Amino acid sequence: MPEAASPVTDRPADQTAAAIESQREVLLTRLLDYLAQPSVSATGEGFPGATQRAVDELRLAGLTPQVIDTPGRPAVVGHRAGPPGTPTVLIYGHYDVQPAGPRALWNSEPFEPVIRDGRIWGRGTGDNKGQHFAHLQALRMLLETEGGYPCGVTMILDGEEELGSPNLASLVAENRDLLAADVVVWSDGPVHESGRWCVLHGVRGILAVRLTCRGSTRPLHSGNFGNIVANPAWTLVSALASMRDADGHVVIDGFYDDVAPLPAAESAAFAALPLDLEHALAEAGASELDPSHGDLSYYERLGAIPTLTINGIETGDLKRTIIPNEATARLDVRLVGGQDGQRVFAAIQAHVAKVAPDVEVAFEVCVPASRTPLDNPYTPLLADAVASATGEAPLLIPAYGGTLPDYVWTDLLGTPSLGLPIANVDEANHAPNENLEVERYLTGIAISVAALRVLGARREVVA
Amino acid sequence: MPEAASPVTDRPADQTAAAIESQREVLLTRLLDYLAQPSVSATGEGFPGATQRAVDELRLAGLTPQVIDTPGRPAVVGHRAGPPGTPTVLIYGHYDVQPAGPRALWNSEPFEPVIRDGRIWGRGTGDNKGQHFAHLQALRMLLETEGGYPCGVTMILDGEEELGSPNLASLVAENRDLLAADVVVWSDGPVHESGRWCVLHGVRGILAVRLTCRGSTRPLHSGNFGNIVANPAWTLVSALASMRDADGHVVIDGFYDDVAPLPAAESAAFAALPLDLEHALAEAGASELDPSHGDLSYYERLGAIPTLTINGIETGDLKRTIIPNEATARLDVRLVGGQDGQRVFAAIQAHVAKVAPDVEVAFEVCVPASRTPLDNPYTPLLADAVASATGEAPLLIPAYGGTLPDYVWTDLLGTPSLGLPIANVDEANHAPNENLEVERYLTGIAISVAALRVLGARREVVA
Repeated sequence: MPEAASPVTDRPADQTAAAIESQREVLLTRLLDYLAQPSVSATGEGFPGATQRAVDELRLAGLTPQVIDTPGRPAVVGHRAGPPGTPTVLIYGHYDVQPAGPRALWNSEPFEPVIRDGRIWGRGTGDNKGQHFAHLQALRMLLETEGGYPCGVTMILDGEEELGSPNLASLVAENRDLLAADVVVWSDGPVHESGRWCVLHGVRGILAVRLTCRGSTRPLHSGNFGNIVANPAWTLVSALASMRDADGHVVIDGFYDDVAPLPAAESAAFAALPLDLEHALAEAGASELDPSHGDLSYYERLGAIPTLTINGIETGDLKRTIIPNEATARLDVRLVGGQDGQRVFAAIQAHVAKVAPDVEVAFEVCVPASRTPLDNPYTPLLADAVASATGEAPLLIPAYGGTLPDYVWTDLLGTPSLGLPIANVDEANHAPNENLEVERYLTGIAISVAALRVLGARREVVA
Repeated sequence: MPEAASPVTDRPADQTAAAIESQREVLLTRLLDYLAQPSVSATGEGFPGATQRAVDELRLAGLTPQVIDTPGRPAVVGHRAGPPGTPTVLIYGHYDVQPAGPRALWNSEPFEPVIRDGRIWGRGTGDNKGQHFAHLQALRMLLETEGGYPCGVTMILDGEEELGSPNLASLVAENRDLLAADVVVWSDGPVHESGRWCVLHGVRGILAVRLTCRGSTRPLHSGNFGNIVANPAWTLVSALASMRDADGHVVIDGFYDDVAPLPAAESAAFAALPLDLEHALAEAGASELDPSHGDLSYYERLGAIPTLTINGIETGDLKRTIIPNEATARLDVRLVGGQDGQRVFAAIQAHVAKVAPDVEVAFEVCVPASRTPLDNPYTPLLADAVASATGEAPLLIPAYGGTLPDYVWTDLLGTPSLGLPIANVDEANHAPNENLEVERYLTGIAISVAALRVLGARREVVA
């Protein structure tokens, strides 16, 4: 076993690991201190101190920070150029956190983080402070040991991601030069369900619409007016039911038209992902896979095709014998690459106009999907970085089912964007007892250092 | 014009009218005093005094009263035999009232009734104290002037009609002898929309069911689980939509099977009813008739065919991008004559089992419809009574759209049952500022006296 016999410090990754191990306590103490600063965008708790704290951390890491005001919470951006000819990576994170929620559900104070059982417990540990702080500590470590970074780095910390980043797109559009980069890397959400490190190449977008059918001016007695006045609940139910066939496929004209066909490489990548179906269903509290998409694999259902989901229906009263006077449904479509939310909205409108002209279709929100091709030049570099830091190549995931405003990088700036989640699967983001495994945080720092090094080494390639 | 020239007091009806006119003040004072006794079955306000007061009024009218206890509010029943060979009429009313509701919405105290603008204002004026009190005053007048009634009379005052008379059917079943009669007359609800006096021959029944579809154990993120876990809202919506065709006709196998075909006389009676469609729709706050039953007249829609109404649907959330974990709908069927609620329930169950086996169908409540044929022997008698007291024949209405527990007379006892509403159309029952026109109350007394006389005169017929 010659490899095991070679000295640990021969490889840069091993040197980094040793350095991290030697600074273990201070790296943890710094994170605990950062987490103790509340930064609840929804309530304002901790602001404006939270913004100043983010500025301070960027400066400590070697970046030149600036605050970018928005109509909501400010964003913080910092930059440091790399050696000439090296690419620039834009690291996206967010310094705001969810409200803590009921204290009684927490095992320790949400804003007095503690280490217990190999995990850091506190609001923001996983989502997202612990994750972007790993990058900040990687930068700080490189600054301290090498006087700078191996490549250019811009870091942007969003101050209102937990509010849906309502001002991010305009901020990006107005700061194109500041945010110009060769690749975007973001670390948010958990690693793959199997616990394996992974690189994400896209997210589904979202389109939300509201269908409303109005009847009489008030609820009516179902005996006195049954068969006399039409019931908007029947109209709405028929309109909704007409949107899918018996197999659960959406039959709205044009709904699937722009869905980009899945390249063979992505199809293969989806197929290669490990799956513990029983566990996944148990996590969801479900007993079986939705029979509607029997021709597709688990991950293709999440990444390759759009959804049409009834989020909720409200009409009438389950206790009174009335004809309701109004019926409302809210639907969301998780958009995939190629789909234009406005065209999908128009398709839904046209369908409803045809089958139920009395039903009003209102636009609520649209966030486009984001896709970075698997064969972009940066995936192999990140994969190398993960492999060198962890000893195992990451899973390559073409697209993830949920929605992030990742399109601001891929669509608005035309920059490939790669997700490199650091948090454990049971990080409990948005929930009580949010946590981050200590080893994942430290390994995240190691991966970040390795990634910056391989990006810097790309100098020759791009030169 | 010889008729106009004949002395007013020649006809018994004219004598009654004159007697009522001479006692006008005392007849009103007695009603105001009766209305001042609260009797809110839902809250218990005014009980047990309200029951005692009903007993007292029956005794003053000449009946021998008794209290019949139930698991809820007691009923009061009184009887007085008529001359040998005369039929017995059972008069049904209820002494309980709805809660007054917010005082601020009333123009005067709900339980301090006043006369203003030709109307008596107060809780229970129309529903139902003023109406059955007209019968009580007719009986008292006959007792005082003739020492008894022209026919046998049993009166039952329900103490929990406003709660849906939950104990009436068992009370009737256990007191068949006490309640045995040749005909039932009840005065509740308003006269015909046109203001014309009317005789009602039936009411629709009701069957209420609850459909529930369960999915996962909790609401799921629509991005993380969209296309993975089936959405119970889609299942429920499809099941509901499958119950009707594009024309709004119910396509549940067997749904219309037992609907009794409409006899020609009833069809003609429906057609003969006056209709101000524009006014009726304006009252409902609707702009057009339900296009689903274009082949049927307004009154046939209400009386001749059942309804299938979605009362309400509850599922998910109109604000969150989730897959709901449960979807529930409540439906009511207004049953018509011939329909067996249990068979209709079984038909709905069988339909849902076929199209959506995951949807659970739960039985909630069933009250059978009630129908008394138009050609029963008592309608002409009541019609004569109305004509003699008011100068105009009443409208004959085969069936009314709403539901009352009238089947306890027609089905359980096999007694024909006729409705003779006294209240004005705008009585505002169940609402603030409930009222009863003074002249309708006094005319109600006159009609009741005339009805008792024509029933008594039937002695020769049945003898």
